Amino acid sequence: MTNEELKMYLKFAKRLAKKAGKIMLKYFDEVKEYHYKDDKTIVTEVDEKINKMVINEVKKNFKDHAIDGEEEKSGKSKYTWVTDPIDGTAMYQRHIPVAMFSLALTEEGRPVVGVAYDPFTDTLYEASLGQGAYKNNKPIHVNKTYLEDSSSVVQIDMWPTATYNLYDIEKEIGKKSYIVTIGSIVHAGVEVAEGNFTLALFPGGEGKNCDIAALKIIVEEAGGTVTSLFGEEDKYDRAIHGAIISNGIVHDEIIDLIKEIGVEKC
Amino acid sequence: MTNEELKMYLKFAKRLAKKAGKIMLKYFDEVKEYHYKDDKTIVTEVDEKINKMVINEVKKNFKDHAIDGEEEKSGKSKYTWVTDPIDGTAMYQRHIPVAMFSLALTEEGRPVVGVAYDPFTDTLYEASLGQGAYKNNKPIHVNKTYLEDSSSVVQIDMWPTATYNLYDIEKEIGKKSYIVTIGSIVHAGVEVAEGNFTLALFPGGEGKNCDIAALKIIVEEAGGTVTSLFGEEDKYDRAIHGAIISNGIVHDEIIDLIKEIGVEKC
Repeated sequence: MTNEELKMYLKFAKRLAKKAGKIMLKYFDEVKEYHYKDDKTIVTEVDEKINKMVINEVKKNFKDHAIDGEEEKSGKSKYTWVTDPIDGTAMYQRHIPVAMFSLALTEEGRPVVGVAYDPFTDTLYEASLGQGAYKNNKPIHVNKTYLEDSSSVVQIDMWPTATYNLYDIEKEIGKKSYIVTIGSIVHAGVEVAEGNFTLALFPGGEGKNCDIAALKIIVEEAGGTVTSLFGEEDKYDRAIHGAIISNGIVHDEIIDLIKEIGVEKC
Repeated sequence: MTNEELKMYLKFAKRLAKKAGKIMLKYFDEVKEYHYKDDKTIVTEVDEKINKMVINEVKKNFKDHAIDGEEEKSGKSKYTWVTDPIDGTAMYQRHIPVAMFSLALTEEGRPVVGVAYDPFTDTLYEASLGQGAYKNNKPIHVNKTYLEDSSSVVQIDMWPTATYNLYDIEKEIGKKSYIVTIGSIVHAGVEVAEGNFTLALFPGGEGKNCDIAALKIIVEEAGGTVTSLFGEEDKYDRAIHGAIISNGIVHDEIIDLIKEIGVEKC
């Protein structure tokens, strides 16, 4: 892919992010229609509206590309736009302003462009391959924090139907770092990218590539590392094997801890 | 205390909440001076500014009352104003809009008036003894959710120097409910009061009455229950013994679970 193409796709992604953010804000104060999916996680009419908007925009602009949205998919292609229309729906639905929109373009499963947008503070994170990561147009970098430092904050996500169980991992990391679960892995991940969090762990598998695809490139272009829970490169246009999203420095320590405690890969 | 007095104190508390919220917003976008306390939790210059403001206002208006602020105290009295100037400082300092101001008036340790304010969504929670709980002047009520319901969200707070260790408790509850740690127990507590969260567990002791005093009355006036982790009534003008903040329905189940798992009271 040429730099010109990357630029064009990034510009497109940023436009969609702002458009999605407007929809999120428009319905934020309202009671929203919602239901629970098979995995018992929540989805509102707003997630579905934004997912639909992304599908329509991609189809209109890039006919040959596919879309893998957390709520709806369309097509198959070497190039797939992967979106989580509202990451943190359970918080969004409860009027807690931490939810974010995220969108990535993947080329054979590898994210080459990624955006994440927080409409509540109007903060746009973006990255494209080899071009660095930015927050509202300013370069961002991961921190150099170790888990035992006072300033270390670690996100660990949990839900009853999650593919992996990270409770024993959390118990260990909790001896060193302040543990949070702010209710949106995308929000936590951009906090890693800009140096506010040290690490985020994510126990999702099937369908959960939508949550991590944009973070993969944003965090890595900010100097961090994103792999599966087992230290491997995942493809982000299909099921993943959890995620370690880190500042890079603590990455191997976490892979070792997961091996030691014995989380089974599935 | 007469109803007229309660009204006056509540009006005063609400005025301070709005004043504190303005200060929080004013410095939200800025890099803030901060340091770590003995327990390794963070405090910024903004926490200290708001704490000082509360002390000055109480001294000016109610000469005989004491103030117990998370960052600074003043005096001793039957009547103590207990404040957490910014609950969720670690999030506030990182520009994540979940932090809240909280303030309670206690009479011999019993909260009789409480307010909690979220300046980011301009949401004010208030309660006074026997008068119900309100969110922006509308009555609020806890939910009727059980832990195993799909809609059940539970906050469990964690930090390395916390008085109590709740990891094994979390592991059990995590089998049933979606677990979050949004980074502010006050914010989580008002979500219990208005029926969005089922439960919040808090492992703090010494100095941590400041975090829970306002929640005690707001959640109970909304129909919920707030006790120590051991099911006992705490006094909120001194060290507490952790907190169970619940919709009432799940309260006994949690006390039993804590007994069963064996958290030591200290």
